[in-house]
Amino acid sequence: MSVFTPVSDGEAAAWLSRYSVGALERLEPIATGIENTNYFLTTSQGRYVLTLFERLPAAELPFYLELMAHLARHGIPCPAPIADADDRYLSRLNGKPAALVTRLTGTSVERPGAAECAELGALLARMHLAARSFKGYVENPRGPKWQRVAVAEVAPFLAKVELEFLRGEMRYQSEQRFPDLPRGAVHADLFRDNALFTAGRLSGVIDFYFAGIDCFLFDLAVCANDWCLASPADPELDAPRTAALLGAYHALRPLQPAERAAWPAMLRAAALRFWLSRLHDKHLPRPGELVQVHDPRQFHDILASRAGPGARAPWLA
Amino acid sequence: MSVFTPVSDGEAAAWLSRYSVGALERLEPIATGIENTNYFLTTSQGRYVLTLFERLPAAELPFYLELMAHLARHGIPCPAPIADADDRYLSRLNGKPAALVTRLTGTSVERPGAAECAELGALLARMHLAARSFKGYVENPRGPKWQRVAVAEVAPFLAKVELEFLRGEMRYQSEQRFPDLPRGAVHADLFRDNALFTAGRLSGVIDFYFAGIDCFLFDLAVCANDWCLASPADPELDAPRTAALLGAYHALRPLQPAERAAWPAMLRAAALRFWLSRLHDKHLPRPGELVQVHDPRQFHDILASRAGPGARAPWLA
Repeated sequence: MSVFTPVSDGEAAAWLSRYSVGALERLEPIATGIENTNYFLTTSQGRYVLTLFERLPAAELPFYLELMAHLARHGIPCPAPIADADDRYLSRLNGKPAALVTRLTGTSVERPGAAECAELGALLARMHLAARSFKGYVENPRGPKWQRVAVAEVAPFLAKVELEFLRGEMRYQSEQRFPDLPRGAVHADLFRDNALFTAGRLSGVIDFYFAGIDCFLFDLAVCANDWCLASPADPELDAPRTAALLGAYHALRPLQPAERAAWPAMLRAAALRFWLSRLHDKHLPRPGELVQVHDPRQFHDILASRAGPGARAPWLA
Repeated sequence: MSVFTPVSDGEAAAWLSRYSVGALERLEPIATGIENTNYFLTTSQGRYVLTLFERLPAAELPFYLELMAHLARHGIPCPAPIADADDRYLSRLNGKPAALVTRLTGTSVERPGAAECAELGALLARMHLAARSFKGYVENPRGPKWQRVAVAEVAPFLAKVELEFLRGEMRYQSEQRFPDLPRGAVHADLFRDNALFTAGRLSGVIDFYFAGIDCFLFDLAVCANDWCLASPADPELDAPRTAALLGAYHALRPLQPAERAAWPAMLRAAALRFWLSRLHDKHLPRPGELVQVHDPRQFHDILASRAGPGARAPWLA
């Protein structure tokens, strides 16, 4: 479980009196999540999520909350932060920075088909279009700077061949230059479990706490590597799913020639980022962390599939 | 009907491409409403209301939209304006200022009981608490300045005894001074048809286009005069309903001694404002206005009931 900071009903009710959302009716801890303490919070008026921030840098919290608020007021179905009596999204509860956001409906889809991939592509394009007018700036927190530190930290735990592959991919990415690709605030972690569907429609995108400024194409590559596999055991991109994702995206935000050219390298960059973070989670778990660690092997294989000599990077028909 | 400016599906779809809310699926004119052209607009993502502003002063439109946006991000269930690609709530469509807002669910209650009055009181208090941090400023558009002009305009149409009563009430109000009453942005028109209920809960407050800065107590008096009558034919305030409204409000925003003292005069002020506007709508209808005019008589009787020598102004027990 991942409640690092317990909150009692009485504490939540008192804290809630500074908000205009009605009286507390129910408070339930959320078991998933490794970065924050989360509760489902129900009031006489609606359903919310209470988050106590445990590890994120305090200076960057406004970026995440303002980004969600920006996207929400552009109509993107993402958690909308609720402002308190001081007109702020961020306050304190039990010694931690805390925020209240709307709770979205829907359930995630474990095995998305082309239809779900198309829903995702369209919503991702709309998110990126809406993000263009967002003024906040925080670098992708799992970008090159973090990656260099992480490689040094996991190196002692890796077999020689793994480490060489990892260093080779780091070198390959450091040689890529994408100065002309459209950039902006991206989700950067839009895996299947961060998307909620209702009746076949994508009704919610959640968990923006890995967001940052990066290439929009990176966001798309993260999605492709998770959503467009024919099965979890197969690291290859499935062509129909990938075409559905890219086609729906392209219809709303047309991809540029430079983005087409960068696509294979971006798929590798996205796979590298998650292989590395999963290696790091496995070999350097944080104290008190009891969550199940994802096997890094899957993203090793995805990266190898994207980087190998016979690599296929399906694109639009 | 009240579509002053027709919008075709094609025009709406093209206009909508500057928003991140998905593709147009359905556009239906809304028959009610006398100030604006309204359409229900459904997209692949959600349900919205498209409003073309026909008469409101252009300079004041940002006030209404920013107020709704402020209240919505404080968790008040009111229409939330959607920002466009330029990050603006207001754009143009078919030559008119236009805005897209979320569509709320629920239905209005024609004969509210004490339970509905309590729901309203609690929500009104939460709205007023949230409004305290709102920075916009537009005077109540049906305040004393408008009222003086309106009295002069309707005077030729009134019987002598009516005109004397009207002028007497204007004089009475001009002698009231409430410098110490808490003020802020108020809805000022929260009649039963502007409140939506779902399963007994107040799930939406709509139509903010008479909002302005005024005493919070005025908002409460407008509500009491419409919600707390035992029957539409009886101008007297029903004590249980009034106590429910005020009690629920008071529990969240405690009413001050000065507000208690001002209550009877405020009920008269609220009744006067609607008697006068209904007289004005009846005797000076605007060209092209085909909506059914409310009979001014009801608010004449309410005002007489509040102003008479035996006037009762039920308060908290």
